[in-house]
Order: sequence, then structure tokens, then C-alpha cells
Amino acid sequence: MNFDLVKTANNSRARAGLITTPHGKIETPVFMPVGTAGSVKGIHTRDLREDIKAEIILGNAYHLYLRPGIPILESAGGLHKFNTWDGPILTDSGGYQVFSLGEIRKISEEGTKFQSHIDGSYHLFTPEKVVDIQRSIGADIIMAFDECTPGDADFEYARKSLELTKRWLHRCFNRFTETEPLYGYNQSLFPIIQGSIYSELRKQATAHVKEFDADGYAIGGLSVGEKEEVMYEITETVASDLPGNKPRYLMGVGTPVNILESIDRGIDMFDCVIPTRNGRNGMLFTSEGVMNMRNKKWENDHSPIDENGTSFVDRYSKAYLRHLIISGEMLGAQIASHHNLAFYMWLVKTARNEIMEGDFKSWKNEMIKKLKTRL
Amino acid sequence: MNFDLVKTANNSRARAGLITTPHGKIETPVFMPVGTAGSVKGIHTRDLREDIKAEIILGNAYHLYLRPGIPILESAGGLHKFNTWDGPILTDSGGYQVFSLGEIRKISEEGTKFQSHIDGSYHLFTPEKVVDIQRSIGADIIMAFDECTPGDADFEYARKSLELTKRWLHRCFNRFTETEPLYGYNQSLFPIIQGSIYSELRKQATAHVKEFDADGYAIGGLSVGEKEEVMYEITETVASDLPGNKPRYLMGVGTPVNILESIDRGIDMFDCVIPTRNGRNGMLFTSEGVMNMRNKKWENDHSPIDENGTSFVDRYSKAYLRHLIISGEMLGAQIASHHNLAFYMWLVKTARNEIMEGDFKSWKNEMIKKLKTRL
Repeated sequence: MNFDLVKTANNSRARAGLITTPHGKIETPVFMPVGTAGSVKGIHTRDLREDIKAEIILGNAYHLYLRPGIPILESAGGLHKFNTWDGPILTDSGGYQVFSLGEIRKISEEGTKFQSHIDGSYHLFTPEKVVDIQRSIGADIIMAFDECTPGDADFEYARKSLELTKRWLHRCFNRFTETEPLYGYNQSLFPIIQGSIYSELRKQATAHVKEFDADGYAIGGLSVGEKEEVMYEITETVASDLPGNKPRYLMGVGTPVNILESIDRGIDMFDCVIPTRNGRNGMLFTSEGVMNMRNKKWENDHSPIDENGTSFVDRYSKAYLRHLIISGEMLGAQIASHHNLAFYMWLVKTARNEIMEGDFKSWKNEMIKKLKTRL
Repeated sequence: MNFDLVKTANNSRARAGLITTPHGKIETPVFMPVGTAGSVKGIHTRDLREDIKAEIILGNAYHLYLRPGIPILESAGGLHKFNTWDGPILTDSGGYQVFSLGEIRKISEEGTKFQSHIDGSYHLFTPEKVVDIQRSIGADIIMAFDECTPGDADFEYARKSLELTKRWLHRCFNRFTETEPLYGYNQSLFPIIQGSIYSELRKQATAHVKEFDADGYAIGGLSVGEKEEVMYEITETVASDLPGNKPRYLMGVGTPVNILESIDRGIDMFDCVIPTRNGRNGMLFTSEGVMNMRNKKWENDHSPIDENGTSFVDRYSKAYLRHLIISGEMLGAQIASHHNLAFYMWLVKTARNEIMEGDFKSWKNEMIKKLKTRL
């Protein structure tokens, strides 16, 4: 994997870059649609590629390990072959998912014991095992196994948790170095910076991950309940401590506004379930603002769902989409998810153009006003 | 609307025809994907048109009347504008749906009183009202309002029910003649032949509908619990009594085998929820037989779901589709529904080619053996 920093904006830390992976190039800033269980919910891979113009998608090691399971993924020849997405893939390690399990997981030095959310069976994830799983999945970019520190952790908890994540990171890199990719192309391992809302811990964590000559670095444990301002502050602190010649990935973030604010602070890569999950609930993001499609005001509005939209789904009418969502028709969830993903891709692509040739900062400020509008 | 009988098969009653509607031509035999509430579940209109190659789709007057409601459809300019399907549309009158409501509907001379399955509100459908509703929806082909006689009705019930349907048919045609289409193109009204499993009643009903110079004729009240052999017998009896120069529509039928058997008996048009409903449950129809995608045997089968399939979805693997269905991922229901519809379209198109240029009967007999295979 290779990263070229193409340009930094004039009056912002926003960066335009180019990542080259074994499955193709990715222009940054980039948004990565989430395909937790190997499918971006409601979207054919053909449409992701040709209409939404996704450049990389996510999978999740925890979910894929439980279902379909590693032997099946290996016999398919990896996730790319399994789900027909032949572009770059990044897999999350499952640290966040295991953290979400709450009562049914137990963390020790060795790893994390947890019960499957599907059938209650017991499993142990260790840093080594999670690297092995991601070797089997065959993602281009794989993530270290970490403890995702809860948003309300006190300093002492966060400090201990970070120490554990650091020890686990060594074990991840050891395993990664000892093993080979399974399918004939290289994989890259990204460390994850934890440290909760404590700048001191975040600085320590950043210094630590830099000891590894990784292909990119991720910021985890944000957008887990802390205030937005705190998230931006931590993001800015960490990003400015990271090397300029590697991509920076802010995990699980966020709304369109969060994304623009984080690009402004030097972030290159994003993923989030918001466009698909909120889409399924009838929420649409557009360049003019947010629409709740359940709202009665759209009932008789026969104009396209997004006049400026880039996708073929944007020519469906607001009234029709509202009808589908209200009636619980699958197609409603499909259209809304599809539109939102296409919008997210448009947003980061336009941000890149502004970094390259325009005035990113002014554009961002204008755009954020619109994005905060309730239509 | 116009129907050209292009060819009748050499050794069968199977017919190849061409229907011309205000929204385009339809080659018969044809299968019409069902879009009950204005959307074929899980399928974009673009894909219906370009990939599945549907030539006409169905809507349902009962469902569309309740939701989104007639004022919204009228302000959209009809269903074509509302759902972006610009090809031909046929609407069912709602007779069958009201019949399905059981306890919450009451039939009188005037019409049928029923309670909405959505909010329990009371409504009255009369033959006149149902014609008006379908004028508002703007379908190219609209259906008469009938009582769908239950499959287990005794002769006396079936006879009385048929008499009512006959009186209602007069009222439908009167209203149809008195009113104008709303959107600048002509609509056609098809009568529905009832009479349950009683040949004598079916013959009476057929004679009665022929008194109206309709653009086409439908057979209703089959596939409602009677034996398959009875269904074929009634279909054959009725079809052979109908005029040769008008299309014949067998409502709500059926499996791929049912469709081939009925084409053989002179039927031109079909609709059914089986390809989409069974698809959502993980059942796939292919030219080699039926597959239950939940079956463990597909777990590790990485071959395409249908080697002979005509759709882009057919290149997904069996193992992947099984994983999606088992995991409850929306995309599983989409792929299976999409494949099944494309298969149904391939089936009727191939039937037509065999009628035109091949040996329909031998092909049909061979194909039915395969269709009955459990893979």
C-alpha cells in the first residue's frame, strides 16, 4: 500500500491524497460504506461501484467470523471473491463490536471472551487471532485489535485500557510480521489510537503508534458519547501529531458535518453506518439540508428527492419515497440508503476538489450551514 | 389497446401475441411482476426495465387507495409518474384483497364494506368506485370489481356469487363508459370470469363476459385452494371458450410449472407474488430446478447462483446468497427476488420463442421435469 499526499489546503489542515492498494486506488478524503456482514445493506456491489462510486468498503471481522465463518471465507478465496466487490476493502477488527456487547464480554490480558450475539456460543478474540481472521478475510487494510474505551471512562480506566491496547498492538504487529497474506496480495495493518477524551493519553497513544512504521493510522474511541467539541479537539490534537505522509482514519464518524469538520482537521478516511441506518429510518442527507421522509410535508411533493443528486435514485419523487417508507416497502430503505451513500461520496469528492482547486475553508463553512438545515 | 395474435403453436393451444398499450408493447405470453403498493418489492424500476426486462407491472387498487391514497396519486399524475415506471401497468381491482380480509369485510348488492388492514377505518368499494379509483391510478389495463369466490364454496354459493359478479360487471362497464381517462391516454377494462370449480358456472360466466366487447378477459378465483388438476381443467375450458383475438389473463398464477401448463392451455398473461415472496424466503427458481438457499448444502458452494441466469445478480455465489439470507441481510431478499423475476421473464420469453419457432410442447415437457427438480 502506498499513500501520496497530493495537496494540503491553503488555509486548513485538509488534505487531498491518493492511496494505492492491491485492489485499486482511493482518492482521499474518502468515505467508506459499511458492509458489516459482507454486504452494504440494501445495495448491490454493481451499484456501489458504478452509481455510488464507492472506492473502498468496510467489512467487520467480528461479524464475518461468526457468520459465514472463516472456513467459508477461505474457501471462497477471501471476502472480495465472496461478495463480488473487487475494489479495496478494509476490515474493522471487532474491538468496537466486542465492546458493544457489554455484559456478555470479559476483557483480560490475553484477549476478550465474549458470547456470540447470534447463538450465545463462547469465543475468545486475542490480538493474534484477530490478525489471523483478517488474513483469512483478505482485506487490503486490516485493523489492530484494541479495547474501545467507553466514552464515560475516568482517567484511570482510560489509562489502563490504553496500556492494554498498546501491549495488544505489539502482539498484533508480531503476528502480522510472522504471517503471510493468503491470497497473493499484500495487506496493511493500521494501529488504532485510543485514550478516550484525555489529551495526555491521546498524545501518549499517538507517540506509541508512531513507533510502528504502519501504512496508516486510525483514531478510535471517538463518537462514543463524548461532546462533539471534544471529539473535534481530540481529532485535531492527534492528527497534528501524526506523520504527514500516512493516511489518517477517524473510525465510525459520522454525520456529514462531522466529516467536513474532521477533514478540516486533517483526517483522510471515514466510515459510518449513519447513511444506511438513518436511511432505513427515512432520514435523507442532501446538499440543501436534512429531510425526514416520514414528515407529512413530503406527502404531496412530487419533485425529485434531490435536484442536485448524482444518483439515479434521486429522480424518484419525495412523495413516492415517503409512501414507500411509511408503507414499510423495502424499496424505500434501498432508495434512502443508496441516496445517502451517493451523497456522502459526493461530499468527500467535492471536499477534495475544493482542497485541490478551490477554497476549502469557505466552501466548508457554507456547506455546514446548509447541512444543518432541516428541510 | 390492441392485441395481435401472432402465432398459435403447432401441437398446443399456446399462443404468441403482441399487445399494444399507450405505454408500449407487450409480447405474450407475459409475466407481470406484482407491485402491490406501487413498488415491486426490493426492485428499482430501472432494474425492472433494463435487467429483468419486465414489459408490464401490476399495481393494486385496494392497496393504493388506502396508501398513498387517490388524491396523492392524482396530483402525481397517476401511478406511472408516481413510481417512475413508464411502461404498461395493470391494476387489480381489489376484489381479491377484499376477499382475503375475511372477517373484516361484508358483501352486499351495493358493494363490499371492509375495514382497512392498516388503521381499521371503514370503507365501501362499489363497482363504480373501483372504476373511478383505477381511472385515478391511470393503469393501462384496469380490472372489473368482482367477488372472488372462495375455493371451497359449494355450488349454490358459487352460483349466487357469480350472479353478483355479473351484475357488478354491468355496473363497471356502465361507469367505465360514462367516464373518461384522466391523463390523456386510453384505458382498457378487463372482465373477470368467476364460477369456482364448477364447469357449468365457468361456461356461463365466459358466455356472459363475451357480451362485452372487452379488450381482454381474465380468469379469477383459481389457485385459491383447489387441486392443481382442477385449475388446469377450468383454465382449459374457459380459454377454449374465449375469443381468439383477445388476450387471456389467468390471475394470480403461479409457479413456473403452473405458468407453462397454462400457456399450453391458451393463456397469455400471468401475475403472481411467488417470485418475490418466495425469493424473500430464500427460494430460487432456475432452469435446472428449485433451490432452498437456507439449505446447508449451499454453505460452501462458490459457484454462481444460476450459471444460465440472464441477470447480473446471477453472478453472486450460492454461498454468498445463503449467507445473506441466513443473516437476514436485505440484499439477500433483493438478489433472490430479482433473480426469480428475471427467471420468470426468461421462462415466458423462451416459451414464446418455442411457440414461434420451435416445438413448444416438447420443450415444455422437458422444462417441467427440470422445474420440478429439487436441487
